[in-house]
Amino acid sequence: MSRPTIDHRGPECGLLGLEVLEGMKEVFQTSGKVIIFPSSGSGAWEGALTNTLSPGDKILMFEVGQFAALWIQVAVKLGLNDDVVQTDWRHGVDAQVVEAKLREDRDHKIKAVGVVHNETSSGVTSSISAVRAAMNRARHPALLLVDVISSLASIDYRHDEWEADVSIGGSQKGMMLPPGLGFNALSDKALAASASARLPRSYWDWQPMIAQNANGFFPYTPATNLLFALRESLQMLREEGLQNVFKRHVRHGEATRRAVAAWGLENVALDPKEYSNSVTAVYTPTGHSADELRQVILDNFNMPLGTGLGKLQDKVFRIGHLGDFNDLMLVGTLGGVEMGLDIAGFPHRKGGVAAALDYLTASCKESASLARA
Amino acid sequence: MSRPTIDHRGPECGLLGLEVLEGMKEVFQTSGKVIIFPSSGSGAWEGALTNTLSPGDKILMFEVGQFAALWIQVAVKLGLNDDVVQTDWRHGVDAQVVEAKLREDRDHKIKAVGVVHNETSSGVTSSISAVRAAMNRARHPALLLVDVISSLASIDYRHDEWEADVSIGGSQKGMMLPPGLGFNALSDKALAASASARLPRSYWDWQPMIAQNANGFFPYTPATNLLFALRESLQMLREEGLQNVFKRHVRHGEATRRAVAAWGLENVALDPKEYSNSVTAVYTPTGHSADELRQVILDNFNMPLGTGLGKLQDKVFRIGHLGDFNDLMLVGTLGGVEMGLDIAGFPHRKGGVAAALDYLTASCKESASLARA
Amino acid sequence: MSRPTIDHRGPECGLLGLEVLEGMKEVFQTSGKVIIFPSSGSGAWEGALTNTLSPGDKILMFEVGQFAALWIQVAVKLGLNDDVVQTDWRHGVDAQVVEAKLREDRDHKIKAVGVVHNETSSGVTSSISAVRAAMNRARHPALLLVDVISSLASIDYRHDEWEADVSIGGSQKGMMLPPGLGFNALSDKALAASASARLPRSYWDWQPMIAQNANGFFPYTPATNLLFALRESLQMLREEGLQNVFKRHVRHGEATRRAVAAWGLENVALDPKEYSNSVTAVYTPTGHSADELRQVILDNFNMPLGTGLGKLQDKVFRIGHLGDFNDLMLVGTLGGVEMGLDIAGFPHRKGGVAAALDYLTASCKESASLARA
Amino acid sequence: MSRPTIDHRGPECGLLGLEVLEGMKEVFQTSGKVIIFPSSGSGAWEGALTNTLSPGDKILMFEVGQFAALWIQVAVKLGLNDDVVQTDWRHGVDAQVVEAKLREDRDHKIKAVGVVHNETSSGVTSSISAVRAAMNRARHPALLLVDVISSLASIDYRHDEWEADVSIGGSQKGMMLPPGLGFNALSDKALAASASARLPRSYWDWQPMIAQNANGFFPYTPATNLLFALRESLQMLREEGLQNVFKRHVRHGEATRRAVAAWGLENVALDPKEYSNSVTAVYTPTGHSADELRQVILDNFNMPLGTGLGKLQDKVFRIGHLGDFNDLMLVGTLGGVEMGLDIAGFPHRKGGVAAALDYLTASCKESASLARA
Repeated sequence: MSRPTIDHRGPECGLLGLEVLEGMKEVFQTSGKVIIFPSSGSGAWEGALTNTLSPGDKILMFEVGQFAALWIQVAVKLGLNDDVVQTDWRHGVDAQVVEAKLREDRDHKIKAVGVVHNETSSGVTSSISAVRAAMNRARHPALLLVDVISSLASIDYRHDEWEADVSIGGSQKGMMLPPGLGFNALSDKALAASASARLPRSYWDWQPMIAQNANGFFPYTPATNLLFALRESLQMLREEGLQNVFKRHVRHGEATRRAVAAWGLENVALDPKEYSNSVTAVYTPTGHSADELRQVILDNFNMPLGTGLGKLQDKVFRIGHLGDFNDLMLVGTLGGVEMGLDIAGFPHRKGGVAAALDYLTASCKESASLARA
Repeated sequence: MSRPTIDHRGPECGLLGLEVLEGMKEVFQTSGKVIIFPSSGSGAWEGALTNTLSPGDKILMFEVGQFAALWIQVAVKLGLNDDVVQTDWRHGVDAQVVEAKLREDRDHKIKAVGVVHNETSSGVTSSISAVRAAMNRARHPALLLVDVISSLASIDYRHDEWEADVSIGGSQKGMMLPPGLGFNALSDKALAASASARLPRSYWDWQPMIAQNANGFFPYTPATNLLFALRESLQMLREEGLQNVFKRHVRHGEATRRAVAAWGLENVALDPKEYSNSVTAVYTPTGHSADELRQVILDNFNMPLGTGLGKLQDKVFRIGHLGDFNDLMLVGTLGGVEMGLDIAGFPHRKGGVAAALDYLTASCKESASLARA
Repeated sequence: MSRPTIDHRGPECGLLGLEVLEGMKEVFQTSGKVIIFPSSGSGAWEGALTNTLSPGDKILMFEVGQFAALWIQVAVKLGLNDDVVQTDWRHGVDAQVVEAKLREDRDHKIKAVGVVHNETSSGVTSSISAVRAAMNRARHPALLLVDVISSLASIDYRHDEWEADVSIGGSQKGMMLPPGLGFNALSDKALAASASARLPRSYWDWQPMIAQNANGFFPYTPATNLLFALRESLQMLREEGLQNVFKRHVRHGEATRRAVAAWGLENVALDPKEYSNSVTAVYTPTGHSADELRQVILDNFNMPLGTGLGKLQDKVFRIGHLGDFNDLMLVGTLGGVEMGLDIAGFPHRKGGVAAALDYLTASCKESASLARA
Repeated sequence: MSRPTIDHRGPECGLLGLEVLEGMKEVFQTSGKVIIFPSSGSGAWEGALTNTLSPGDKILMFEVGQFAALWIQVAVKLGLNDDVVQTDWRHGVDAQVVEAKLREDRDHKIKAVGVVHNETSSGVTSSISAVRAAMNRARHPALLLVDVISSLASIDYRHDEWEADVSIGGSQKGMMLPPGLGFNALSDKALAASASARLPRSYWDWQPMIAQNANGFFPYTPATNLLFALRESLQMLREEGLQNVFKRHVRHGEATRRAVAAWGLENVALDPKEYSNSVTAVYTPTGHSADELRQVILDNFNMPLGTGLGKLQDKVFRIGHLGDFNDLMLVGTLGGVEMGLDIAGFPHRKGGVAAALDYLTASCKESASLARA
């Protein structure tokens, strides 16, 4: 953190603010406003809820995994009336259930639908366009709040096209930054809702943010150094091209799944349409501790794998493949898992890395032939 | 920000967490718990209020300057019932008023007294020990909430000895870090209050923080990279010695005031006992724009001075002398102001820097003779 | 390069100098003096020659590869009388030839024998102990000068035990630093030779270096920032343990060779006893351009492989596996080569990465079982 | 040194090489070739001598101070025949002596004239244009070698206009970098001389450098990371403008001398036309140790002043005012000296800083009025 901290009310900071606020719109694929909080992603959850809802409001949420469960807890703590749909943690949000729930709600007591786009604990990505279509079919006025913390700048996400009302992001995943920035992208409808929402709020309040952001400033001290770093991340994303970033994650997701299949292990996500391209959660063979495997891999290869969270604890390990990541890092990562499975003596087949190499190679060849065409 | 972001659930992060939580106790001069939020100082204000108070609770606050005014706004926005004592922004909190207000409040409707230790906008430091003594004389059970954002690790502040209930700090001043960490130091009484306080809270909730902090972890993603930097700051403070840090700020405050007096300019703070040792706010001569002076100094010497805030706008400039700062940086800073006054053509006397040099020299000689004795 | 450049005549720099000079002795495995030049490794070659030899002196050298050839050029340019033994660039120095050459030299016209320990262009490591034994058998007084630029802190090298007279190193390989430091480790015999050696020298002169180094200083401005970085490298080496560093390179060398064999490609080095553990040079199949392969791998995976140098140009690519390197980086590297061979359409067998994984896994298991025993 | 070290034979490095080689021409104010050595400035001395001279060649040198004396030692060590003109270390090179010496030398035995542009030990700047004029008047073919190590990018220096043959620089002064790069700027005449010069050379040899530099490469490993940093320095110089950089140093030199005069202390340099604008050497009052003063200032203000070198040891302290330096840093520096003189109890008058402030202020006003005109 060698850059000196600048005066956050000075002109240099104003220009920086305008630049990163504009850049974040591209990332969210929106022409609307984006709010940047000096907070972790959990703060951005709270920002979405407190600006749009009032005490006792009903919010329809789907517990598709551990992070969804934590977000539900936040809603409960803030005094909202949660209507939670449980799942097996192996599927995403069921748009038919969304539609049915909203159709039942004739009095429009449900004020918001809260869904996680990419559930990190299970490696399941829900279709937000399907959720939105269901809401539209039900002609229900509820707001659509979407957690994109682990999909932003990794998995294609379209705030405007999919008519999200608040999209909730953080700095530490696809934005390739340390944690410390939370994002809210807003629709006009969300902004309108904030005029009447009565949950108490100050730090998370959008209104003074929007007022000050007009000139690139913030109503209270922003995380200046992270804003500088954000400018660099945005530049990196622009250089690679957001669509290329998405394609890279698609390739790495598929290569990882080929390795998992070759090992004979089981993906947590059951529906191929819902496979996450930023993280893959994998069951260890029954009777074999995922935490033991993670420890073996950490001890031998100094690689920390994601732990199984909540009810997946000790049953699942998670392979992250997002952010500042490339083919050879993925090959190294998969190599570490394959060797770890062997060292730990877990039943598996070899050949996962080989399968990933085959897929990546074929994909390189295809790109080259497309480029020639 | 070259250090790779670490897994915030891994063992390395746990050790780091324990170390910085322990270190922050020394800085607050407390044996109680310290909470670290991934937030700016404004978030730490909100943490103090939401954990200890309930909707409609009355809080006695003193608008001693712009930052106090902003904190009051936070309290209002959160639905608290503010009892605000106005001041001329040139004095600190009047302990006699505290005592009188609390004595009047026979039903103990006032649940908390909120004071700013060091008001950055005016360069006024209030006596927290006097406030506490007044509260004790009034035998009133209100909690004492103290904003130490711009005094922590600069001006002597004693959480335990002065019986503060919540002390509110941030990373970007005396801790010499970028903004992005907010602190709450807690008394047992504050912790007890949090059990019954009913303001909705999730991000700011102390209870899950305390539970996870026991092992050095956090209930949601902490600002990991700032925690690493905090460890280094704590090490620097320990090497210099906290008491020496305070003495250094006393010297620099006094040297700055000698310069101001020599220039024939007027300090905003009127009571010498309340002069701030981390920042000095100075009136420009009547009829002369402080913002013009600041611009001249920025243009000629690339030095940004603090602006006059709120009702002091364009009337006052502020000289910061806190954090990672030494004698020669102070001399340079004062030189920039003295030259700026001349270039701007503002009525003043020369000799400010010379007066500061005299004082600093004498102070060095005195230290040396004390060391010999 | 954020650390401010320090006064190289101040006490801080003296302590630093003493510390790194001492540390480098451990790395060379010597109790004698080590000289640190602000130069690349080529400068350290020149230092070794100019301090020990006189114009027209005869030096026996072995052109085992491109770097040996460059060093020979240096000797020629400096006016030495080279007696060069050519090789096929696929073998190291032949100790029997050393012995024969020295035995022939009854007048002791040969003043020095210059050998490269690890030839980077071919991946061949010569046995220095065998060379020394041959010299001793021949009872010849020539000095033994050894280039350890690409083996230092990677491949076991013992300056004292193997009775080297000058060992020549650089910062940019096993020391894991940017280029800019050259090293000479000295025997007493080399020091004695420098008293009468008449090649002109000033920058490279050991005598003023040794005089100033006694207090940690240098006769002219050292590369201060690299010395700070060197202190950190030495600390890293000490933490891992030099013997463990060597073992890690042995494992990575072997894993790489297993991959090469599995691909059906041919190692440049022919004698298994001479396989380099820091770099592997590999022939592409006859008629297939190594530079094309390197370009394919650079374009697709952003990985630069070492080029074929000198007479190996376009026939050979080189895989480096030294320095700050670990198992998963190696797996990624080998994965990049295997995919590149496929994309380039070069005849080869798959399975190189798989063979490396098998070897690395077995080696981890063996270490674990040894640790348990 | 967080940037990873790049492959110095790869295309990225070639572009970097071309860019910095071109940039250095601007700094030397030449359209000829510039050589960049991975070395300290002393290496660049050796480069200038070994490429242009032969064993026993006569070189006319002027011992104007300690660095000149060290350079003379280098020439002697390399076997040159020095014709040294002694001075009182308080004056620069006397052009009349140059002319007289060269006129006497009817056989043109003198092959080069070696002068230091800015002698750091004494704060004396010699007039290179006067030296060149004297050489031209004498119609003598000797080469003009100029050490600009402490003037490059600080004090106006014109390689082409002043017809220097080799200009010798380093990275650690006006280029604002760590030590580790040495520069030689060459005239065509110098290049021609290198074809017949017979001092042995390899590392310093210009010919392979020039050959490889054509494509931005180097014949042996360059100090890659310093080349990246050099690119940034060149960008900073270009942004400020080289002429503005020179003016800034002129202002700081004059402000420093006003302070010295106000203190009643004596400048080492006696001739105002020869005052250095990058460093000022000052005598302490007779009988008072300069080293004691330096220690007092280091202890009290953590500021290391330059020591008196060679025959000026303990009599002189040196104030550097070059490189990445601004008005307020200068004021702080002078403040440290003024306070140090007082604390040390050395006879002096106060008012040095005040005099500097007056001068700097007047200079700012003048610039502003010029800008308005």
